[in-house]
Amino acid sequence: MTVADLSERELVARIQRRLAPAPDWLLVGIGDDAAVVEPARNRVEVLTVDVIVEGVHFDRAFVPPEAIGHRALAVNLSDLAAMGAAPRLALLSMALPPALSVADFDAVADGVAALAARHRLHVVGGNLTRSPGPLMIDMTVAGTVKRRQALTRSGARPGDDLYVSGSIGGAAAGLAMLRQRPRPATVEDSERAQEECRLDRDLTSVSSASAAVERYLRPEPRVLLGVHLGRNRAASACMDLSDGLADGAHGIAEASDVGIAIDAAALPIDPDARAWFDARGQDAIVEALTAGDDYELLFTVRPRTRRRLLEAARRGGVPLTRIGRCTADRAVVLQRPRDGSIDVSPLPQGFTHFARLKGSRSV
Amino acid sequence: MTVADLSERELVARIQRRLAPAPDWLLVGIGDDAAVVEPARNRVEVLTVDVIVEGVHFDRAFVPPEAIGHRALAVNLSDLAAMGAAPRLALLSMALPPALSVADFDAVADGVAALAARHRLHVVGGNLTRSPGPLMIDMTVAGTVKRRQALTRSGARPGDDLYVSGSIGGAAAGLAMLRQRPRPATVEDSERAQEECRLDRDLTSVSSASAAVERYLRPEPRVLLGVHLGRNRAASACMDLSDGLADGAHGIAEASDVGIAIDAAALPIDPDARAWFDARGQDAIVEALTAGDDYELLFTVRPRTRRRLLEAARRGGVPLTRIGRCTADRAVVLQRPRDGSIDVSPLPQGFTHFARLKGSRSV
Repeated sequence: MTVADLSERELVARIQRRLAPAPDWLLVGIGDDAAVVEPARNRVEVLTVDVIVEGVHFDRAFVPPEAIGHRALAVNLSDLAAMGAAPRLALLSMALPPALSVADFDAVADGVAALAARHRLHVVGGNLTRSPGPLMIDMTVAGTVKRRQALTRSGARPGDDLYVSGSIGGAAAGLAMLRQRPRPATVEDSERAQEECRLDRDLTSVSSASAAVERYLRPEPRVLLGVHLGRNRAASACMDLSDGLADGAHGIAEASDVGIAIDAAALPIDPDARAWFDARGQDAIVEALTAGDDYELLFTVRPRTRRRLLEAARRGGVPLTRIGRCTADRAVVLQRPRDGSIDVSPLPQGFTHFARLKGSRSV
Repeated sequence: MTVADLSERELVARIQRRLAPAPDWLLVGIGDDAAVVEPARNRVEVLTVDVIVEGVHFDRAFVPPEAIGHRALAVNLSDLAAMGAAPRLALLSMALPPALSVADFDAVADGVAALAARHRLHVVGGNLTRSPGPLMIDMTVAGTVKRRQALTRSGARPGDDLYVSGSIGGAAAGLAMLRQRPRPATVEDSERAQEECRLDRDLTSVSSASAAVERYLRPEPRVLLGVHLGRNRAASACMDLSDGLADGAHGIAEASDVGIAIDAAALPIDPDARAWFDARGQDAIVEALTAGDDYELLFTVRPRTRRRLLEAARRGGVPLTRIGRCTADRAVVLQRPRDGSIDVSPLPQGFTHFARLKGSRSV
């Protein structure tokens, strides 16, 4: 059975029954021309939109549909986290190829709903339409934060330390691992591969997949960390790593009008990723710096307020690593130990050219 | 030159320079991970999302790019209007085929920006991504309304009168007219046709196009009417006609738990549309009832508060027509005069089946 066999109303109902009961601030929910919500008191609103497109951001041959739903929301939650905002609501806009199976549709909705429930976010409305091409999931997410606690990219100053959460490079290595698996050659093979994906998922831990594959398939937005970094103003600037650490460092440097020097030896490169890149003769540092999809937070901290970081480090749910510092000149550089001295080179650029763009770009 | 020749940053800058200066409630705008806005005081927030997809909602062979941008925003403003809300902000998410010309990209942005400026709506953020298939424009729009002035579909009662704004059927006839024009057979023909579209647009009044074509190409959301219908609670229920009047009548009837009887003779069918359908031996009433894309408002009014309608009628900027009434039974019927008596038949259903869906459906 495909989505073309059901009415829109039935499809909407399948989404609705996966959602938590409506919160009391939702005055008019799914089913009218638009949603009506009561604003949160004494908070400003943080709004972001991101789309994931089949063939650009994911490949249905090896990304199970539940992971597609998870990703569609996770990439947006990561943007909220970078602003220090707590998630509140989302609108879910899906363009569906008519051949999409109802089982896969349900699984996409499951992926959205499960992550939404974990972050106490409510889907207040959305849109369903037919796609003549790829499956696309566009989500707009709104969160709230106290006005003085909102984090931006522009608050860094020379002398601030640069930190990153978690590890980098894992998702890129995971994607490379998935891409290297034998690709299905026929429709039947493809269906079998998708069935295997579903079986994998049912086994709780995806036996054949490493932690890196899991990092790619189900990125964990650093929402709790972002909220705590904002709450006591531990961070002076913050952004997320959807387009990689190099892109993030350039982004903070430009917005804050500072330089940044990154210590290559300090980078928390995912061990699986390092092994994967090393085995292929690739420079793990450059690969990890330019890899996207990590969805970690990159942030700066004033040395004199470093103690505030303790609270965020304790309650953010993810390790933090100091990887460099902000400088007064405008150069964004990578410092690598080499032959007993320090080799300083410009930090690679992230993906900036639209045609080569792997992912998408927030406006 | 195509969008693939530019960096995302350049594309974003091309959008930004078309926008009005940022309003003071916009604390963080385009360029960070997310937008930060100060909520409007003493208002609830109205949120809606709608996408338009090439090959589903528009055909680039005969819809000029500026009209595509106009439509992407108009369909959302129409949803806000149906809730009685004043537009405030939008997020613009575009999936761009790499072959899209920069001139067309600019024109799409022009179409969005021009309509946004007329309704004092500010684009606070968005997303750009590559599309491996169709051009898609997904917009999320937020408006504000006083809590007691929000209109829903569910407030109609038996005895209420049913009204529609403007006229119906015009956009469907306009689309049929456009479709009947000779289609370009080659890429060169297509480029010439698009060039002609651009020339047409430059001539202010599109000489070869009738008013019906204009109705299809540049629907006018009834924002002012919606706001006035809400402001003095002139309407007891309201929805917009994105999927046609028949669909709207069923929608209000179901949400309000009433029946509806529509007087066929009273329907304000667009004269061009009537002539077009008559000339082809089609039933103009059925065609106009089931036609989409009109973006008029369908609303109900309590007879005892009918005087409140005067203000909305005077200031709403569009004629209003009483076309029927709400009934205590649950039947939704069409009353047609025939041979001196009244023929009563079930109102046609709108498009409800996903596979046959012409447009998209708000969740």
